Amino acid sequence: MKYTLGLDFGTLSVRALIVDARTGKEAAHAVSAYRHAVMQSAIGQEECAGREFALQYPPDYLESMREAIDVAVKKAGIDVKDIAGVGIDFTSCTVLPVDEEGVPLCVKEEFAQDPHSYVKLWKHHAAQSQADEINAVASARGEKWLKRYGGTIGCEWQFPKLLEVLEKSPRVYNATAYWCEAADWIVWQLTGSYVKNACCAGYKGMWSKKDGYPSEDFFEALNPAMRNVIKDKFDAPFAFPGERAGVLNGRGAALTGLSESTPVAVPVIDAHAALPACKIVDDNVMLIIVGTSACHISLGKDVAIDGICGVVEDGIMPGHFAYESGQASAGDLFEWTVKKILPQSYRDEAEKRGMSVYGYLDELASELRPGESGLIALDWFNGNRSVLSDSRLSGAIIGLTLSTKAEEIYLALAESMVFGTRAIVENYRKNGIDVDKIVLAGGIAEKSDFVTQLFSDILNMPVCKAGSSQAGALGSAIYASVAAGADNGGYDDLRQAALCMGSLKDKVFTPDPSRVKAYDKLYEVYAELYEKFGRDGKIMHNLKEIAKESTDENNRCD
Amino acid sequence: MKYTLGLDFGTLSVRALIVDARTGKEAAHAVSAYRHAVMQSAIGQEECAGREFALQYPPDYLESMREAIDVAVKKAGIDVKDIAGVGIDFTSCTVLPVDEEGVPLCVKEEFAQDPHSYVKLWKHHAAQSQADEINAVASARGEKWLKRYGGTIGCEWQFPKLLEVLEKSPRVYNATAYWCEAADWIVWQLTGSYVKNACCAGYKGMWSKKDGYPSEDFFEALNPAMRNVIKDKFDAPFAFPGERAGVLNGRGAALTGLSESTPVAVPVIDAHAALPACKIVDDNVMLIIVGTSACHISLGKDVAIDGICGVVEDGIMPGHFAYESGQASAGDLFEWTVKKILPQSYRDEAEKRGMSVYGYLDELASELRPGESGLIALDWFNGNRSVLSDSRLSGAIIGLTLSTKAEEIYLALAESMVFGTRAIVENYRKNGIDVDKIVLAGGIAEKSDFVTQLFSDILNMPVCKAGSSQAGALGSAIYASVAAGADNGGYDDLRQAALCMGSLKDKVFTPDPSRVKAYDKLYEVYAELYEKFGRDGKIMHNLKEIAKESTDENNRCD
Repeated sequence: MKYTLGLDFGTLSVRALIVDARTGKEAAHAVSAYRHAVMQSAIGQEECAGREFALQYPPDYLESMREAIDVAVKKAGIDVKDIAGVGIDFTSCTVLPVDEEGVPLCVKEEFAQDPHSYVKLWKHHAAQSQADEINAVASARGEKWLKRYGGTIGCEWQFPKLLEVLEKSPRVYNATAYWCEAADWIVWQLTGSYVKNACCAGYKGMWSKKDGYPSEDFFEALNPAMRNVIKDKFDAPFAFPGERAGVLNGRGAALTGLSESTPVAVPVIDAHAALPACKIVDDNVMLIIVGTSACHISLGKDVAIDGICGVVEDGIMPGHFAYESGQASAGDLFEWTVKKILPQSYRDEAEKRGMSVYGYLDELASELRPGESGLIALDWFNGNRSVLSDSRLSGAIIGLTLSTKAEEIYLALAESMVFGTRAIVENYRKNGIDVDKIVLAGGIAEKSDFVTQLFSDILNMPVCKAGSSQAGALGSAIYASVAAGADNGGYDDLRQAALCMGSLKDKVFTPDPSRVKAYDKLYEVYAELYEKFGRDGKIMHNLKEIAKESTDENNRCD
Repeated sequence: MKYTLGLDFGTLSVRALIVDARTGKEAAHAVSAYRHAVMQSAIGQEECAGREFALQYPPDYLESMREAIDVAVKKAGIDVKDIAGVGIDFTSCTVLPVDEEGVPLCVKEEFAQDPHSYVKLWKHHAAQSQADEINAVASARGEKWLKRYGGTIGCEWQFPKLLEVLEKSPRVYNATAYWCEAADWIVWQLTGSYVKNACCAGYKGMWSKKDGYPSEDFFEALNPAMRNVIKDKFDAPFAFPGERAGVLNGRGAALTGLSESTPVAVPVIDAHAALPACKIVDDNVMLIIVGTSACHISLGKDVAIDGICGVVEDGIMPGHFAYESGQASAGDLFEWTVKKILPQSYRDEAEKRGMSVYGYLDELASELRPGESGLIALDWFNGNRSVLSDSRLSGAIIGLTLSTKAEEIYLALAESMVFGTRAIVENYRKNGIDVDKIVLAGGIAEKSDFVTQLFSDILNMPVCKAGSSQAGALGSAIYASVAAGADNGGYDDLRQAALCMGSLKDKVFTPDPSRVKAYDKLYEVYAELYEKFGRDGKIMHNLKEIAKESTDENNRCD
């Protein structure tokens, strides 16, 4: 029997999953946490480089990868010769400067004390002003690639972070031979060759298969030193998910403990790997990964849609455009309720019943009829990512009375999260991409049948849940099977691999017609508020401006 | 030395206050709770007559009055002969049906089992549909008296409650010789004669000095049986605050334990009695009584103002029009925060510091700069009384983020309460009544210097606090001194009596210019929301409608 290995590089650890290369059935898995986790400064520096810094150390990835693989192989009790392929997914945009040979600058003595030589993790948020510059210049120049990203690019992406290096540490910038996605760097370590995966490049690198990167003129307008940045620091071939990136070379075999020549798949972004893991191979099915924030991924034809996070041709599945949208807060809304405004009595009662407080709130909320509380909320507690792409928006709760209870606020926030998804879906439809089925993955979906049913009732669609709680790793294992190929016990075709190896839970959540009707009415109110506070963002922008002035004034006094 | 006695009939008890008839200095006070408190059905009935019923039993007033007077006199150690006058204030509209001799119908055996024969306390809220009828008929007929009440009358008032009796218990209606304010009924018991005080009649009885009651045609349009209601059930002379209503007769002396012939003042509504107690005798000073809700009283010239609760010529102070506005929730907003959304950690910390939780929240809120939280709230948790007169509005909190804390919500709600007052003040100004000084009374003002300062900063005015925590009773004692007259050791003039006997706390809260500036900006946002959600009430009306439908549907299923 043949197996494949999926390596899922998360924020704090890497997960190794070994599955049957034909059925996707799990043989074993193991997780290993990164030694230095997430840092706010260079190793050995006590001082924080910045409150919004989030750095990592690349050797940690290799060390944890080996540990996780070893444990998983041992647990599975298999011969590594039977591992027919390796697939990789990684957080993104997680990016690092390396030299010509792929050596990370931060491991070199001369750069080890410079935080800008380290991996900048996806949630490194110190490059907002650089993102603002890029958006302003691109918008002023009418750069048409900006449309692919709904009109704005984020501070987490490749070029804001690179511009930050240029502005803050020209020395590191000048020494950078490649500005490399961590996903691609791992593959480089394993295969000896550097290819840029189209998924990261497309979603986070302002690149498209059709139009390539932004022009030299654009980069020059941004910063004269960047005119030739693509030639200078991005000079490598592209490779597409579903293809083979290469095979393990001697060093790769040593780093993994696997056999030399084992095929290695082109890597993908962690969230995107969940798509094949959830058997999604056709248009019109939307995968929503509901964690602290929410990410919406679906396949479709080539159309222009406002307010998406990105669209990438062949970015996940060959022959398809893959769309991504997002909500900047999702599970965070539940956590806010529980941590910031929940009276003790709820915790006491939950404990008495032997339930989690979230489970207890779900139960209370499920006893409320749609609209009964008179509340409606806006879910923009962390800004709006899609459709409005406006980080200066904020949350709202409307309809409060003296008898409003915490569980009613909890429900209103849950509803607002799903209304936010509905706004995304309706925008897709308006632009010619239909959605007729939802698959949920991620922690909230996994834990809460109540929230899952809410998706079904508010979106008026059947909703399934991901079959695996490690959908990213399973997706990587599926890509690995395709990299291996049918001759090696895998598949030649990603579509077939996904259908055979992916999994969904059996239970399908279907809409309750009376709740659908009630939620249609409430959604009309949400849509009106969407216009009043979102499209016309003046009020919330004003509040943020006043808050900023108030803080600035205070800082002046210090 | 001469004394006067103020009797302050509250919701659950009566307070007797004996003061020096010239200086207003307290000699003693005592409180006695009503035996039957507030009831939801007739005495002896187990079944609740209605969730929104609030009934009282008139003999309780007499019993508690005697007890409170006896204790106060004993404490003061004075001879009752030295009590030169009695003044009375009462909750309003608290109203009861009596026979020709003033005997309450509920004490007669044939009516004792009918809840409609009892006193309907101000907060008896079962006559909303009757208030709606009155507003609809008056509005359709273009009744100009409706303007005096800002366009709508409330369900707590005299005629909705009387119409409720007519509709629900015609037997009681037909047996009613007078539909009598409890304040006037007490005076009747003490003096043997029935006069209607202009304060209750003006604010709660659709009557004005200039135009009298609504016409017979109006009442006929409302209900044919009511055509002659004024002749039939309101046939008594009016009397004005600051005048003498009569003197204690034999029965009155027996009921009070005071001397026969002691002068009795024309009674006033409890809140309104606080005006002279706070030395307010001129235009342009606004008294705000901040309890669970807020009530704004000020003197002024005769102009038409939208959205007030009422305006009464000579209603409080001879020679002045007295305006009343209101906010349906005030202290209730703080209580909501503490009871419905406050995590335990705040209580623990307050306890550790030996503070009340409200005091601790004040302290936390006082460390926040205006606007810093990014929040703004609408204070309409219980509807909007002034300026919008719309009970279907509800509250809102806008600008929420994942880091929003409970004390920030607490502050935003406190600010919204004061913004609501500012909307009332600005509306007065627009209509030609200036306000240049604020006096706060009531529990919240008394306890919280923080909230008091907020009034000063947001209204940009000096703010004083009532000197007495029993401003209603002190006001009644002042009216009593005027009823006694200078010859009996009191005063001939209410203005002079108020200035000599009323009191304010020494400390004056003055605006902090930098906070005034910041709050001016925030108020602009509030004013914009006032338009978007208040003047155009569609969104909140819609939410209430949806909530109602949801509940109705559910009731149908039961």
